Amino acid sequence: MKIEHPYLLFLGDVADQLSAKTAHGIADWRPDWCLGQLRMDGCKADLGLPDMTIEAAVAAGAKTLVIGVANRGGVISEHWIDVLETALVAGMDVAAGLHNRLAGVPRLATAATQHDRQLFDVRHPTRSLDVGNGRKRSGKRLLTVGTDCAVGKMYTSLAIEKEMRERGMNVDFRATGQTGILIAGDGISVDAVVADFISGAVEWLSPANEPNHWDVIEGQGSLFHASFAGVSLGLLHGAQPDAIVLCHEPTRDHMRGLPEYSLPDLGVCIEANLAAARLTNPAVTCVGVSVNTSRLDAAEARRLLLHIEDSLGLPAVDTFRDGAGPIVDRLS
Amino acid sequence: MKIEHPYLLFLGDVADQLSAKTAHGIADWRPDWCLGQLRMDGCKADLGLPDMTIEAAVAAGAKTLVIGVANRGGVISEHWIDVLETALVAGMDVAAGLHNRLAGVPRLATAATQHDRQLFDVRHPTRSLDVGNGRKRSGKRLLTVGTDCAVGKMYTSLAIEKEMRERGMNVDFRATGQTGILIAGDGISVDAVVADFISGAVEWLSPANEPNHWDVIEGQGSLFHASFAGVSLGLLHGAQPDAIVLCHEPTRDHMRGLPEYSLPDLGVCIEANLAAARLTNPAVTCVGVSVNTSRLDAAEARRLLLHIEDSLGLPAVDTFRDGAGPIVDRLS
Repeated sequence: MKIEHPYLLFLGDVADQLSAKTAHGIADWRPDWCLGQLRMDGCKADLGLPDMTIEAAVAAGAKTLVIGVANRGGVISEHWIDVLETALVAGMDVAAGLHNRLAGVPRLATAATQHDRQLFDVRHPTRSLDVGNGRKRSGKRLLTVGTDCAVGKMYTSLAIEKEMRERGMNVDFRATGQTGILIAGDGISVDAVVADFISGAVEWLSPANEPNHWDVIEGQGSLFHASFAGVSLGLLHGAQPDAIVLCHEPTRDHMRGLPEYSLPDLGVCIEANLAAARLTNPAVTCVGVSVNTSRLDAAEARRLLLHIEDSLGLPAVDTFRDGAGPIVDRLS
Repeated sequence: MKIEHPYLLFLGDVADQLSAKTAHGIADWRPDWCLGQLRMDGCKADLGLPDMTIEAAVAAGAKTLVIGVANRGGVISEHWIDVLETALVAGMDVAAGLHNRLAGVPRLATAATQHDRQLFDVRHPTRSLDVGNGRKRSGKRLLTVGTDCAVGKMYTSLAIEKEMRERGMNVDFRATGQTGILIAGDGISVDAVVADFISGAVEWLSPANEPNHWDVIEGQGSLFHASFAGVSLGLLHGAQPDAIVLCHEPTRDHMRGLPEYSLPDLGVCIEANLAAARLTNPAVTCVGVSVNTSRLDAAEARRLLLHIEDSLGLPAVDTFRDGAGPIVDRLS
C-alpha cells in the first residue's frame, strides 16, 4: 500500500491535546514528512506546525491527508466528511487509523474512485496473507516486547531505529499498529488480522533482507496480558527476533484493563519471552529494558534504572528521556 | 446460532471416503442426531446410514442438511447448489464448514430468505465478540492441548465428554473448530476470529456455570507450532482450564506443514502449557496424555503408553482405542 508523504495532518475539531496523540507521534518521529496541520473551528489541539488549507498543502506538494486524531469512539465525525472529500478532489489520498472505515463512507468512496485517489484504513488489514511458515530469513531483527499493553513499545522501537540510523546502521522500523503504520507509511495491524495469520502477517512485514540489515519491529500487547497474549506470541514467532527489548511502565497498579491481574516480574517476563522466541530463533537474546519513567522524579528514575541494571545485568534506559544508546551498543 | 438436529448428512459426489471425514465425525459422536445420508451420483463415500431423499428426511423430521464433506479447495461445488436449494425450499436449514460461504451463493441466500431458513457457515464467526477480561468464572474446565496440529484434540475431547456423561457427570463439549461445531450444534472457530478476540471468544464459548459442571473444550494447534501458537495461547488463557490433557501423535517426523521443526518433548510441552495457563488459572494441572497409536501395532502401542506413564507420572491412553477412563478418574 505505502502511504505517500509529505503529509498534511488533520486535527479536526477535537476537544483536547491528548486526542491528537497519533498526530503528535507522526510529527515527533517524521517531522520531515509533515508540511502542516489542518484544524477546524473549535479545535483545541495544536502540533506547533504551520496551519494550512488543503489548497496550500497541495500547492506545497502534500500527497496525503492523515487523520491524526481520535474522537470519542474512534469514528469519523459527520462534519469532517466535507473536508476529507475536498482533499480527495484536490488530489490528495486520505489515511486514517479509526475503527470505522473511510472506505465505508459512500461520499468518500465515490470521490476516491472518481478522482483516482486512495483511502488507507490502516487499522483494517486488506492484504491476502499466508499462514506463517517459520522458515529462517536472512537479515537481523529486534522486537520490542512488554510487561503490559501501552507501555511504550512503539516509541522505544522508533528511538532504537533513530539511534541506529544516526550511527549509520542499515535499519527499518516495521509497524504493527495503526499509529506506527502512519509513521512508517506502511505496515500491518497484527491484532486485526484473522487469528490463523498472526505469525504469517509478521513474516510478510519483515521479509528476508541483507545480512547486516536490521528490522526494528514494533511489539503489541504482552505474553502476560490475559486478553491479548495470543497476538504477542504470534508476533514473537513471526518476528524470529535476534534481540528483544523489554518495555515497562513502573507505576501501574495492575495490567491495563484487568484490575485483577498484577504486572509480571521483569526477569520472569524476559525469560518467558526468550523461551517462546527460541522456537523460531534459538539464538535470541535480550539486549535491554526500556522504562517509561515519566511519572517518576529524576532521582527515583535514576534509582530504578540502576536497580534494574544491577538485578538483570542488562542496560536499563528511559528511551523517551535519554535515547536508546546503551541498547544499540549491544547490537552488532 | 444453535444448529437444529436431527441432521441429514450430505456427502455430495466426493471421490473417496476420506473426503467425508467431517460426516464421519458427526455420525460417530452424535449417531442419534443423524437420520440418514444423501449421496449424489458418483459418490464414493458411505457412512453406512440409510440413504434418504430430502423429501423423506423432512417427513422423518430432519431439521438441517449438513455438508459433511470437503472437496478439493473446500469450496461449494456448482452442481451441489440445486440440492442445497431444494433442502431450503423443503424447510431444512443448511450448515457447512467450508472456506467459501453458503451465504455467499446468491441462489442459496435468496432461497433462505424466501423460505425463512438459516444458513450456517461455521468456519466464519459472525458473532460480535468482546475482548477477554480474564475474570474467574464458576464451573470447571478441561482443555485438550497438543504437541502439534491434527493430533486428535477433538476426538479426545469427545471421548472424555462421553466417558463423563456415562458416569453421570455434568458436562458439555465446547467446540472451537468447524467439525466440532457441527458435532456440538454450536461453538466458534477460534482460529477464524480477529486476533484481538481469541481469548474473548473462548470466554464467550465457556461461560460461568454450576460449580460441579465441566466444560470439555476442544483445543487448537500447539504452543510449539510456529504458524498457529498464538491461537493456542489465546485459547488457553480464555479457557482458564482446571485440567489440561496433552494430545500426541507419536509417528510424526516433524511439525505438521513445517519440515524444519521437530516435535517437542512431551514433558516440556506439558510444562509450557501449564506455565502459560497459570496466568488465568494458577490451580491448573495436567491430568493425562492422549496418544493416537493407530499407526503402531498393539505391542508397540502398549510399550509406548507405559513408557509415557512411567516418565511423566500421568495416565497415558489411546482414547480412540481404549476410551478416556483413566483420565476421567483424575477429575472430580
